[in-house]
Amino acid sequence: MSTLETTVLETINSPADVKKLSVKEMNILADEIRQGILNRVDQIGGHLGPGLGIAEATIALHYVFNSPVDRFVFDVSHQCYPHKMLTGRKQGFTDPCGHPEISGYFNYEESPHDPFMIGHTSTSVSLATGLAKARDLKGEKYNVIALIGDGSLSGGEAFEGFNNASVLGSNFIIIVNDNEMSIAENQGGLYKNLKELRDSNGTCANNWFKAFGFDYLYVEEGNNVEKLIEAFNKVKDIDHPVVVHIHTLKGKGYEPAVKNKEWGHWSMPGLLSEKSEISGVIPECYETLTKDYILNAVKNDSTVIALNAATPGVFWWDSEFRNKLGKNYTDVGIAEQHACAYASGLAKNGAKPIWGVHSSFIQRTYDQLSQDLALNKSPATILVFWGGINGADATHLGLFDISLISNIPNIVYLAPTCKEEYMKMLDWSVKQDKHPVAIRVPYVDFVSTGVEDNTDYLKLNKFKVVEKGSKVAIIAVGDFFSLGKKVKEELKSKLNIDATLINPKFLSGIDKELLEGLKSNHDVVITLENGILNGGFGEKIASFYGNSNLKVLNYGANKEFNDRVDMDELLTRYRLKKELICEDVNKLL
Amino acid sequence: MSTLETTVLETINSPADVKKLSVKEMNILADEIRQGILNRVDQIGGHLGPGLGIAEATIALHYVFNSPVDRFVFDVSHQCYPHKMLTGRKQGFTDPCGHPEISGYFNYEESPHDPFMIGHTSTSVSLATGLAKARDLKGEKYNVIALIGDGSLSGGEAFEGFNNASVLGSNFIIIVNDNEMSIAENQGGLYKNLKELRDSNGTCANNWFKAFGFDYLYVEEGNNVEKLIEAFNKVKDIDHPVVVHIHTLKGKGYEPAVKNKEWGHWSMPGLLSEKSEISGVIPECYETLTKDYILNAVKNDSTVIALNAATPGVFWWDSEFRNKLGKNYTDVGIAEQHACAYASGLAKNGAKPIWGVHSSFIQRTYDQLSQDLALNKSPATILVFWGGINGADATHLGLFDISLISNIPNIVYLAPTCKEEYMKMLDWSVKQDKHPVAIRVPYVDFVSTGVEDNTDYLKLNKFKVVEKGSKVAIIAVGDFFSLGKKVKEELKSKLNIDATLINPKFLSGIDKELLEGLKSNHDVVITLENGILNGGFGEKIASFYGNSNLKVLNYGANKEFNDRVDMDELLTRYRLKKELICEDVNKLL
Repeated sequence: MSTLETTVLETINSPADVKKLSVKEMNILADEIRQGILNRVDQIGGHLGPGLGIAEATIALHYVFNSPVDRFVFDVSHQCYPHKMLTGRKQGFTDPCGHPEISGYFNYEESPHDPFMIGHTSTSVSLATGLAKARDLKGEKYNVIALIGDGSLSGGEAFEGFNNASVLGSNFIIIVNDNEMSIAENQGGLYKNLKELRDSNGTCANNWFKAFGFDYLYVEEGNNVEKLIEAFNKVKDIDHPVVVHIHTLKGKGYEPAVKNKEWGHWSMPGLLSEKSEISGVIPECYETLTKDYILNAVKNDSTVIALNAATPGVFWWDSEFRNKLGKNYTDVGIAEQHACAYASGLAKNGAKPIWGVHSSFIQRTYDQLSQDLALNKSPATILVFWGGINGADATHLGLFDISLISNIPNIVYLAPTCKEEYMKMLDWSVKQDKHPVAIRVPYVDFVSTGVEDNTDYLKLNKFKVVEKGSKVAIIAVGDFFSLGKKVKEELKSKLNIDATLINPKFLSGIDKELLEGLKSNHDVVITLENGILNGGFGEKIASFYGNSNLKVLNYGANKEFNDRVDMDELLTRYRLKKELICEDVNKLL
Repeated sequence: MSTLETTVLETINSPADVKKLSVKEMNILADEIRQGILNRVDQIGGHLGPGLGIAEATIALHYVFNSPVDRFVFDVSHQCYPHKMLTGRKQGFTDPCGHPEISGYFNYEESPHDPFMIGHTSTSVSLATGLAKARDLKGEKYNVIALIGDGSLSGGEAFEGFNNASVLGSNFIIIVNDNEMSIAENQGGLYKNLKELRDSNGTCANNWFKAFGFDYLYVEEGNNVEKLIEAFNKVKDIDHPVVVHIHTLKGKGYEPAVKNKEWGHWSMPGLLSEKSEISGVIPECYETLTKDYILNAVKNDSTVIALNAATPGVFWWDSEFRNKLGKNYTDVGIAEQHACAYASGLAKNGAKPIWGVHSSFIQRTYDQLSQDLALNKSPATILVFWGGINGADATHLGLFDISLISNIPNIVYLAPTCKEEYMKMLDWSVKQDKHPVAIRVPYVDFVSTGVEDNTDYLKLNKFKVVEKGSKVAIIAVGDFFSLGKKVKEELKSKLNIDATLINPKFLSGIDKELLEGLKSNHDVVITLENGILNGGFGEKIASFYGNSNLKVLNYGANKEFNDRVDMDELLTRYRLKKELICEDVNKLL
């Protein structure tokens, strides 16, 4: 691994240096920025196409505006790689040793050029409206610029922001980066309007932005630095809200990412050396099982429908899978609130929706889970992927879904520990018509017991005693069941305790009868859950035993936002290791 | 109280009866519907202006369409009073004895003519899109009609729904009930577009609905039953999505509600006999204290800004207050996600936002609380009103805010027990710049101790021992502190126990040192909180004491949606009474 050689980029230490460049140098800089992105993504993975497409626009923005006095707010902040390279953080792209220092998202802890930490989408206009209004209240003068696009327009928060930004009555600039894509294809009528606008060079009669009252400017050549500078100069220091709609090429400069924009949106490490489409034999896993199940279910029941909000790749719902499903598939775009309410409507009218969602993004639709879905007891199936402790950016943690979902009445939240349970739960959920059901797809490892699961999940909140013992009972939830088994072994070998091992299966309720029964020959109950402790599963067990002599030890994550912290460090911090748990039990007994 | 006499309404037992009427009879029916609304609201309170304005439209809808085969979904479902009167539930409006039987919202448990239970806004288009898609998957044919309006267009979920409904490719009818109002005034650029459309009889160049690709029809005379029937007949059985924009008069037929539409939006009982504007001397309360504080704060600091999402009346932020604040006030419309992100942006740029919100509506913005606000440590102040157990409709419970807010990292959630603490917390929060702070404004009663609060709330999670005792410790949160005092007295008089009484003040963290100290001379800790137990405050105390001999009894609400259940019944069910708690303690000791 060697440092990337650049000629112009190496002279850029702050936006001031961008202002000294000629157009020719800026074009070289754009190419070097793209090399920087490829270099980083090849080494540590990350977002590829979005940054490649917006190199010129970012250069032009820093050429025209004066960050950090002027404020930039980047939406789907994975578009910010070029911005980072121009604001003193190029080592995160050119220098392999520097890569991990710099996050892949907007981050106020890194630089005054990033006013916020941003990772979820559709936030920029709302956040920037706040910056602009504070500016006005303080009587200050500078530009506030929100950069949105790459699919994030379809989120409700973006719309709410547009609605209010348009009546702000003072300087406010929205750059719409229209690269014709979301993560997968763009979805919805709004994106048809963007196409009309592109096709008419911004002049067509129907203009979604003008309908709000925004001033509007269209730039067809969104990768032409001169045209961009011209446009940005026109709106600089403007005294009212304006939308600058720029048409860019996602993946520009890296042909595979241009040809297959969805594939090129994000990449694992090893991009340049080997990665193309996933190839070879894929071992059985929860993703393949889910896809096979859905394809088969649709064959037998034309009302089964898979849906998701713009992230089909998270569940490996590739274009082949989507095409096979046809009308039995909906990607609603980045619009989780709609996804949830839509699922409720589908279920209420007798269809069988299966909604795949990333743990971090189900946060975007709490009220719909509660009001539209749970209150209506609509029998939709929600598959929550990627829930659990991870070393991700602070904006993409999977810690909060148990606390979020399991405290809403009427939703059955299930936690399978293995393939057989998962398949049974999924099938039961799809075929029943009584409850909204969420299933937390295991995240830690893939386990197949080979033993068919015959549980009737309609009997809610029945925990399963997997191994009967005494003195200590381990209640190990979902994919922490394997940790539970290890703790049991450790207790046996270190303390000669034959612990009881319990698979609770349900996150949304407790098995009072079973818990009551443990009192007779147990002194300690351990709970293990792969998520935040606060508001989670274990605390409910502690509360249940509050009036008894039984002691309870809850294990899970602390209430904190961790930003790219090593998993082993986290597991140690949370004492989620068999030796540490055994130590705690020993102290207690 | 006598039953309302009607001539046409008395003949209407189902929509089939509406279809038999002449236009003349329909107009009489519209007036009788309005009398029904006034009658009900006068007796038991409820939504007034919205229903008065939509009587003709509802009659025309039931005349043209064929519910429940055709499906109606009403948004801000408080517009559904006329619909209820035409679908077999007129006793809820004409007969005083029948009033409480019928809820003020869409309710699938009441009638097949209400496909969902709906109370929060901006949901209709998303829910109806699901119904329509299920219809298409099943190969069925009928109309799906979403009725939206009365301010609910500005919520992000509505926009997400519009975006996807527009590409549904089959029958889908959206009725936009444009009465020129939200609960207070409409807010944002979208509503300017509605005005342009009204002013141009639907013909102006910029058309927000057409920009999505919707077919579009405008009806200026939205209270003219003939014109409405004509328009609805045009779109009946349409094979693609269409918007019918109707211009109606909120409050029609009751002059005070027409003249003051905000006042006439909702009314307490006693409307016809006495209620006009609130008059006379208003006793000191949290609402008046808050207003006085804000007005005073703005005088001294021009960056203090009050904001809310369309429900200023909940906090008594009347037009006089709003006018006094001028630019230091923003009503963002029904757009809680934006409100939260906007507050974060304001705070991040040095302004001092104070955001008032109803406990039930803060659910509409979980992700923004987490990502936009908490992750960014933006020092905004959130005042959560109406949090607590109540006898409201299932859609408007105040039970979930503790579980929702207190499990998000970085947010300080405070629970004052009296005026003096509230004022100190509010002032501290507005002046500090370290934390996002939410304050749960007491709901049960108004208490003033007369003793100034000198706490430094920057020292987080410090509980206060109000009275030292032994054996039993009572941790009584926020407005349940008064219940805590009563429990202490009961324990003394019945069991001769001098209990310790603790005011925790913080909902978002526990005072480990203080809790540790209780172990030496206490056997039982009681927690009392005015909200759902699951994921709440008490469970954290139980978890803390899990490894000790101390017993813990958690009191709060069960995880359930209650629909208009008597408060006393709920308090008994949850054992939230001094005698019942004393019984439980006695059993345990």
